[in-house]
Amino acid sequence: MKKIINDAKNYVEDFANGIVNAHSDKIKFLNDDFRIIVRNNNPKKDKVGIVTAGGSGHLPLFLGYVGEGMIDGCAIGNVFASPSSSKMEEMIKACDFGKGVLCLYGNYGGDNMNFEMATEMVEFDDIETMQLRGKDDIASARFEKKDTRRGVAGIVYAYKIAGAAADLGYDLKEVYSITKKAMDNIRTIGFALTPCIVPEVGEPTFNINQDEIEVGMGIHGEAGIEVKEMMTAKEIAEFALSKIEEEISLNSKDKVSVMINGLGSTPLEEQYILYNEVYKIISSKGVSIVMPHIGEFATSMEMAGVSITIFKLDELTEKLLKSVAKTPFYTNFNK
Amino acid sequence: MKKIINDAKNYVEDFANGIVNAHSDKIKFLNDDFRIIVRNNNPKKDKVGIVTAGGSGHLPLFLGYVGEGMIDGCAIGNVFASPSSSKMEEMIKACDFGKGVLCLYGNYGGDNMNFEMATEMVEFDDIETMQLRGKDDIASARFEKKDTRRGVAGIVYAYKIAGAAADLGYDLKEVYSITKKAMDNIRTIGFALTPCIVPEVGEPTFNINQDEIEVGMGIHGEAGIEVKEMMTAKEIAEFALSKIEEEISLNSKDKVSVMINGLGSTPLEEQYILYNEVYKIISSKGVSIVMPHIGEFATSMEMAGVSITIFKLDELTEKLLKSVAKTPFYTNFNK
Repeated sequence: MKKIINDAKNYVEDFANGIVNAHSDKIKFLNDDFRIIVRNNNPKKDKVGIVTAGGSGHLPLFLGYVGEGMIDGCAIGNVFASPSSSKMEEMIKACDFGKGVLCLYGNYGGDNMNFEMATEMVEFDDIETMQLRGKDDIASARFEKKDTRRGVAGIVYAYKIAGAAADLGYDLKEVYSITKKAMDNIRTIGFALTPCIVPEVGEPTFNINQDEIEVGMGIHGEAGIEVKEMMTAKEIAEFALSKIEEEISLNSKDKVSVMINGLGSTPLEEQYILYNEVYKIISSKGVSIVMPHIGEFATSMEMAGVSITIFKLDELTEKLLKSVAKTPFYTNFNK
Repeated sequence: MKKIINDAKNYVEDFANGIVNAHSDKIKFLNDDFRIIVRNNNPKKDKVGIVTAGGSGHLPLFLGYVGEGMIDGCAIGNVFASPSSSKMEEMIKACDFGKGVLCLYGNYGGDNMNFEMATEMVEFDDIETMQLRGKDDIASARFEKKDTRRGVAGIVYAYKIAGAAADLGYDLKEVYSITKKAMDNIRTIGFALTPCIVPEVGEPTFNINQDEIEVGMGIHGEAGIEVKEMMTAKEIAEFALSKIEEEISLNSKDKVSVMINGLGSTPLEEQYILYNEVYKIISSKGVSIVMPHIGEFATSMEMAGVSITIFKLDELTEKLLKSVAKTPFYTNFNK
């Protein structure tokens, strides 16, 4: 296993320290176990707190989006493993600014269970919470079972919307419903070309042939819809948009944001070649693209592949998407 | 060869169009051959123009740094190949705003030759030019032959300094000498773990064993100093800094910027683990780090590996580094 690390056992602690040391103007550890990241600058008082949590191995997810205009705290798990409920509890307490806390995270068993426990625990401290689970991965279950779908890269848009809504002073229920409505208009599908290697395991997470692509694979290597012969960028764009359009209609004058998310080792050149194909299809419908996001937003370490996310906007979500954000891996200065 | 492309022949055109379509608020093609990128917003009049050029396959290099506060134009070559002198000539003409043009590029045979020709051609139009070549790669030649060294990731700092100096109104000779002095204080060393594949070739650029690391490899797979057994992050940081400190002294109270540059498929987690080791060594000397740059700045498509760049700052270069820049892949808002 060829990774630039020290000891696999210290993988999470080492990269988390690197991030905090590099971005100490924006974030800090809540305490000295290096497992909870919070904003360094105090948010305004009387703002809804937005928190998340998740396993490691997905940078910039999850901790990279802690900062002004996005999320206020993140509990960090081991690679592909949820952090404990007690860490979540500590984090929620630290991110309660008097208006309650929205727990916004991907729909995975461990995270669900631990956030359930954590939100029950903080009730004893009279902290009001609500929970929202990212379920944007259309490949992980059919529409009829969409409540069981996994959360993938689309959660980044949800952080942006929730963070912006909280900054505008909406109350907890309003932030919840604005973010929920935004998430109902976000869909993602992923395509994997190579597996990744979990540091403490040292073996590839799955196998895939040299001339194949797995359509719909999850960010932990969860099985997708089908394994196909390698596709061109144009075929990937067409396939993804046709699947997404089964659930979200795209009509002339509509506005969308598009995220082309590199899963790890897919070069920027290929991400932009794919964006160009998505751009051509969407533009040909008379739909305009607002703030395209191209790069690595939710990865699987060195997995090769991409995901495509479509976020259909309305007047409010467009305004919230465009508002200021200053986090280590996501900045927007309201151009 | 598993790449997300359409046809290898259209690789450059496709990704360049993707970039321009995604970032049309900042950049545009100069004409319809898709080989010259210039700023979309007109720079102030009476500013020194800053231009560059280089082969493709290194995104965000080179075109990704066209924009306010950095460079004004970039001519795009095929993968790992220089663009023609006539493209450079067109670009220089388009980026002359009345105060002459600085051609700032990596020290490679094709680029050197073509910029020589291009700058001679524009003399007929009374456009004054000066040339500066990036030579930051300490592994590519010994100190005694440092004028033959290659330019690698350190050129990004040079773009930032030259662009900021030009924006402040310095004349061509001043921008040249400020940037030259900055470059004398920039050193890089690279470490490769896996090769990349040139799309039209379809084969890996070199071979390296599963348990080895090549110290000092260039961004086109040029041979380095030595092939070693795989190193830890700590060993890589120590080795790199000891080599760089042979040429740049780091003493208490000094200020440096550090760039950890992923060569393509090395995950952000590993880049930050490496940064953490560099941070520990540098901090222990009483040297402070200003604006660390961690991410992909100069890649080799899907090559795995990193480079480490140290930029020793003085009062002027610190100010120029911190000034505003707004390009597709590099933004700074003067925090």
